[in-house]
Amino acid sequence: MTPHALTLAPDRLFPSDATQRAIARNLYDHVRDLPIISPHGHTDPQWFAQDTAFANAAQLLLQPDHYVLRMLYSQGVSFEALGIGEPGQDTPAREAWRQFGQRYHLFRGTPSQLWLDWVFRESFGIEVRLCAQTCDLYFDTITDALTRPEFRPRALFDRYRIEVLTTTESPLDPLVHHQAIRLENERPGGWQGRVLTAYRPDPVVDPEFEGFQTNLDRLSECTGQDCRTWAGYLAAHRDRRRFFAAMGATSTDHGHPTALTADLDRSDCETLFARVCSNRFTPADAELFRAQMLTEMAAMSLEDGLVMQLHPGSLRNHNTTLFRAFGRDKGADIPVATEYVRALRPLLERFGNAPDFRLIVFTLDETTYARELAPLAGHYPCLRLGPAWWFHDSPEGMRRFREQTTETAGFYNTVGFNDDTRAFLSIPARHDVARRIDSAFLARLVAEHRLLEDEAAEVLLDLTYTLPKRAYKL
Amino acid sequence: MTPHALTLAPDRLFPSDATQRAIARNLYDHVRDLPIISPHGHTDPQWFAQDTAFANAAQLLLQPDHYVLRMLYSQGVSFEALGIGEPGQDTPAREAWRQFGQRYHLFRGTPSQLWLDWVFRESFGIEVRLCAQTCDLYFDTITDALTRPEFRPRALFDRYRIEVLTTTESPLDPLVHHQAIRLENERPGGWQGRVLTAYRPDPVVDPEFEGFQTNLDRLSECTGQDCRTWAGYLAAHRDRRRFFAAMGATSTDHGHPTALTADLDRSDCETLFARVCSNRFTPADAELFRAQMLTEMAAMSLEDGLVMQLHPGSLRNHNTTLFRAFGRDKGADIPVATEYVRALRPLLERFGNAPDFRLIVFTLDETTYARELAPLAGHYPCLRLGPAWWFHDSPEGMRRFREQTTETAGFYNTVGFNDDTRAFLSIPARHDVARRIDSAFLARLVAEHRLLEDEAAEVLLDLTYTLPKRAYKL
Amino acid sequence: MTPHALTLAPDRLFPSDATQRAIARNLYDHVRDLPIISPHGHTDPQWFAQDTAFANAAQLLLQPDHYVLRMLYSQGVSFEALGIGEPGQDTPAREAWRQFGQRYHLFRGTPSQLWLDWVFRESFGIEVRLCAQTCDLYFDTITDALTRPEFRPRALFDRYRIEVLTTTESPLDPLVHHQAIRLENERPGGWQGRVLTAYRPDPVVDPEFEGFQTNLDRLSECTGQDCRTWAGYLAAHRDRRRFFAAMGATSTDHGHPTALTADLDRSDCETLFARVCSNRFTPADAELFRAQMLTEMAAMSLEDGLVMQLHPGSLRNHNTTLFRAFGRDKGADIPVATEYVRALRPLLERFGNAPDFRLIVFTLDETTYARELAPLAGHYPCLRLGPAWWFHDSPEGMRRFREQTTETAGFYNTVGFNDDTRAFLSIPARHDVARRIDSAFLARLVAEHRLLEDEAAEVLLDLTYTLPKRAYKL
Repeated sequence: MTPHALTLAPDRLFPSDATQRAIARNLYDHVRDLPIISPHGHTDPQWFAQDTAFANAAQLLLQPDHYVLRMLYSQGVSFEALGIGEPGQDTPAREAWRQFGQRYHLFRGTPSQLWLDWVFRESFGIEVRLCAQTCDLYFDTITDALTRPEFRPRALFDRYRIEVLTTTESPLDPLVHHQAIRLENERPGGWQGRVLTAYRPDPVVDPEFEGFQTNLDRLSECTGQDCRTWAGYLAAHRDRRRFFAAMGATSTDHGHPTALTADLDRSDCETLFARVCSNRFTPADAELFRAQMLTEMAAMSLEDGLVMQLHPGSLRNHNTTLFRAFGRDKGADIPVATEYVRALRPLLERFGNAPDFRLIVFTLDETTYARELAPLAGHYPCLRLGPAWWFHDSPEGMRRFREQTTETAGFYNTVGFNDDTRAFLSIPARHDVARRIDSAFLARLVAEHRLLEDEAAEVLLDLTYTLPKRAYKL
Repeated sequence: MTPHALTLAPDRLFPSDATQRAIARNLYDHVRDLPIISPHGHTDPQWFAQDTAFANAAQLLLQPDHYVLRMLYSQGVSFEALGIGEPGQDTPAREAWRQFGQRYHLFRGTPSQLWLDWVFRESFGIEVRLCAQTCDLYFDTITDALTRPEFRPRALFDRYRIEVLTTTESPLDPLVHHQAIRLENERPGGWQGRVLTAYRPDPVVDPEFEGFQTNLDRLSECTGQDCRTWAGYLAAHRDRRRFFAAMGATSTDHGHPTALTADLDRSDCETLFARVCSNRFTPADAELFRAQMLTEMAAMSLEDGLVMQLHPGSLRNHNTTLFRAFGRDKGADIPVATEYVRALRPLLERFGNAPDFRLIVFTLDETTYARELAPLAGHYPCLRLGPAWWFHDSPEGMRRFREQTTETAGFYNTVGFNDDTRAFLSIPARHDVARRIDSAFLARLVAEHRLLEDEAAEVLLDLTYTLPKRAYKL
Repeated sequence: MTPHALTLAPDRLFPSDATQRAIARNLYDHVRDLPIISPHGHTDPQWFAQDTAFANAAQLLLQPDHYVLRMLYSQGVSFEALGIGEPGQDTPAREAWRQFGQRYHLFRGTPSQLWLDWVFRESFGIEVRLCAQTCDLYFDTITDALTRPEFRPRALFDRYRIEVLTTTESPLDPLVHHQAIRLENERPGGWQGRVLTAYRPDPVVDPEFEGFQTNLDRLSECTGQDCRTWAGYLAAHRDRRRFFAAMGATSTDHGHPTALTADLDRSDCETLFARVCSNRFTPADAELFRAQMLTEMAAMSLEDGLVMQLHPGSLRNHNTTLFRAFGRDKGADIPVATEYVRALRPLLERFGNAPDFRLIVFTLDETTYARELAPLAGHYPCLRLGPAWWFHDSPEGMRRFREQTTETAGFYNTVGFNDDTRAFLSIPARHDVARRIDSAFLARLVAEHRLLEDEAAEVLLDLTYTLPKRAYKL
């Protein structure tokens, strides 16, 4: 059988209804070529600091992509067969890629296929669809391309018209790559790509994080504060936040199991912190400590102006056997039901009405869109809704987000799109999907006479460009 | 820039698909001009008793509308700037209106814009869209119109073709305005508008309501019963329900934090009531007392025939600072997840199969539509589903309600539309949205050959007119 | 008024958008006539073992259909009036049928009407719609037809092109009907219909099941094991599973209140089982025992290869009065919120990565589709998602299932359709609805350029035929 041609339909993701499609096209035309604002993600700053070539197709597109890994694993493909395992016993990259290519049909109907097809077609110019017959062609084409200068990280960054890209780092990170990038930026004739960091303190805030006790000591070392005292610990955070801000950070990010916040008095904080430091704490202590730390981080945001992001609700490393063998971020994180209304109240009671405080909230529990998050964001001046996230960062997921938040929170309590990815090459594809789905959603409102077309165009421009810049103070 | 024309598209809210739109138009034509049945809402009976003119645009359309207030507040506009605050320090009405008009774009995609545009265009004849440039024109046009006889409450009631309008009052309310309206109705040549009350006993049923202890004493006073004994307290409810029914009430309404019901034996009721009366009760006592009172109210409904309504699931006054400064109903009530299956069981075990008992249940938690409420209403003879409520009283919200309840509960276990509003002028707009969305939903079923068109027409008539009258015994 | 004609529109359930409809038609054409794979249901094997005629319209289509009963009951029709009640005091079948026929409008918009109209038109050739005027005609036409050979169970099985049909039986069932069917199959010239059983151990696994203690004794009797010891009890299960497998079973099925699983050590199991056997156990003991038994059943599935199905989340017999009068399965089972991520973890930690283990999970809580089940099934090799179930086994329900699971789990972690019915005559109608809704869903993906049309055709064939056979090892 001849492999299918790989084409990207110009009208993809637009409604098939002729009225809506025509409006969607018009709207999209105004934003398709706007620069990319990527205020939250997990790319590696080393790529842009050192600008070394990516190795091969499997190492670039398969092995780090937990969306792809999880699907293949769910259908019985072992991680070893995908080249992930004991060093020296790895499956060769080409063989790993074949495992993937032969099963590309598993991705039908998933956003992974949308993103990957864009990368294959637009970035690498491949004109046949990935399948068992074409996977070697793919491997060779991609791997060859990666040796060329125009596929180096900085060249791709420029080609993709990324105006600003934010990564996330631990407070313990010395930010050497970000420093290098800033030096490069300042060098006459140097590369001008704007790559920022964000302060992600989970490793020193979550008592259940691997290595937490050691991390506290390392935090003491790198700040000179005594992080075994509550006051020293808070001072160390202030210190590192200041350093991150000096390196360009405009935001913090908090990946907690729940959205719980607390507002304990000082002596209770000290007692709790002492238990946490002693490494003799209960799960409830850990949860309460994380909750209190969200409120502390909010207090610091009022001081230093960093925008706060909360990403709760993922039960990490659900598959212990797999976690022990292969570590984090292998596609075994599973969302759980997440409560926001009571959980956020302590923090909101304290800072919810503070001018200039900004808290962007995400969810993996879509039931909270209309019930909890839109009502909260439609009331509290500090709150904004982050876009559809992770498992919901997809055409249907984005559509549900708009359908379920807009009527209560409007468009202007949302912050535009986050790609949230470590898959650098897919960034334009992801932003393109968001622009198309927003165009489609707005087109329906226009077609149903719920919005005028030029209002819709203004909203779309705001969602694509203005709101993310404003929300993240970029 | 020239302000946009303000027009109400004849096909607004209909699907853009040509087949569906044609069917929706036909269906809607049969019900567009039917009288309005408004069996649940929060307008002020004084308006109709006294028929005095409304004061100005801000006082009529902005300051009492918590949907509008919440959105403006969420984007940093203070209540003081909207003319809500310390008496004597108020922002002038025109200035408050400007704050709103300049930010009307915030309401894009929300039902507030749909309702308000209808009021602006249909009630006041304004032909340009509200924006910074036109807000003074709006203020003047509306404020001037309100001085004219045809904008008095009774004239609007008649012009809007309201067949019956129900308000809600506390058992402590002497219902003087309803008495005045009834006298007016009976006066030869008097105004014939039918305005009913509904029995809303939360202030004397919820131990955590502000002033509950005082309210008990006032209930004793106005009934002559000793409301510090369980028997006297129940007798007082019977007494007031009888009075409300005599004043035209056909229903009661219960706004509880949860849907919990209980069926305690008499001695446990007495013990619990004693704790509640002593003002030394726990939150669990308060919850159990409310739960028991729902069952008591159901028992009384079996006696006096009043239809019972349950509106659970709003966490009131989430923002304590705001509540202390500005009081209730300022847009800071937030829905929470609400369980019905186990919560309603004690009441249903006792009265669920009773002929002639009627319990209409609402929710702010849409996840219960298909999972809990449609299965319950599709089984218990006493149960009917109230329409999409509050945050879900919107095009998408109404559509989800039909999509998620119809397949299990059908149309005939629902009760048609409630506007549930204190924004009197928007009542026709809200009913019009409901009629259009039901037309659109039914049109899809017809277009997909799931219903014949004349069946759909019959269903639509029932949803619009027959079912609310029957469900509320109007 | 002339009764409406009863016709089945060829395009029913397809989108009305012309582009999508054309694609849906093409896709559906490829699968409309495929044989039916029915791997999970509740028909009575006696029908096929004995091939006796069904009695009359009411006994065949009304009285055993809890979907129909519940709707009529919810609108005030008593079970007695439907011919369900004390023997000898029954309403005559014709009169019961009239109660139904006069209220057929209650089923507008429900899947029951879709299924029944198909049965009326396709199986019985009736050409007018059921209503008050036609209900006698219906009763006579159907009751007469049932006396004819072509309406005997085996003839219908063949006419419906059922390739395989699975029923569910208790471990205590001697499977005499399945034995008879197998003998018939093996008889030269005998009927070739393939009817399998499935192992449904709830009556001997759930300590709260009616008659559990007696059932344990009966299990001892029929296996010769001492089912009052933990070891004997497990051996008895192994024994009965072996017997079921020998009679053709390829699967087990577990109908639990929750999805909780446990992995206790042996001595804890023995202690817990002793409490359960003593009939002095708490509800928590019962829940933990059921949880442990799921893990034990999984362990046995690894040994004997039976595919495991989990159907949790129904609160059975919610209406106690009705249950006491009329027993189980009368439409008073109500879904409750169901948690999977933490609940399934003990079982998955033990067997989640085992090659060849297969667990098919269902839900009545649609909020778990995107949040919990698709992420779990998109990771664990053992997991597959059962189709939209029971209250969600409907056009909108099936559409939500695909929209909310596909983007994370893809199509290939689902298992195709289950009709799950005891309403034998409606089986083709139910499969037809599933085929049409899948066609419609895929047509939208094609029309929005998210899938190529020939990919969609391949997926549809897999969903209809290949996946159920593979998932259930048929």
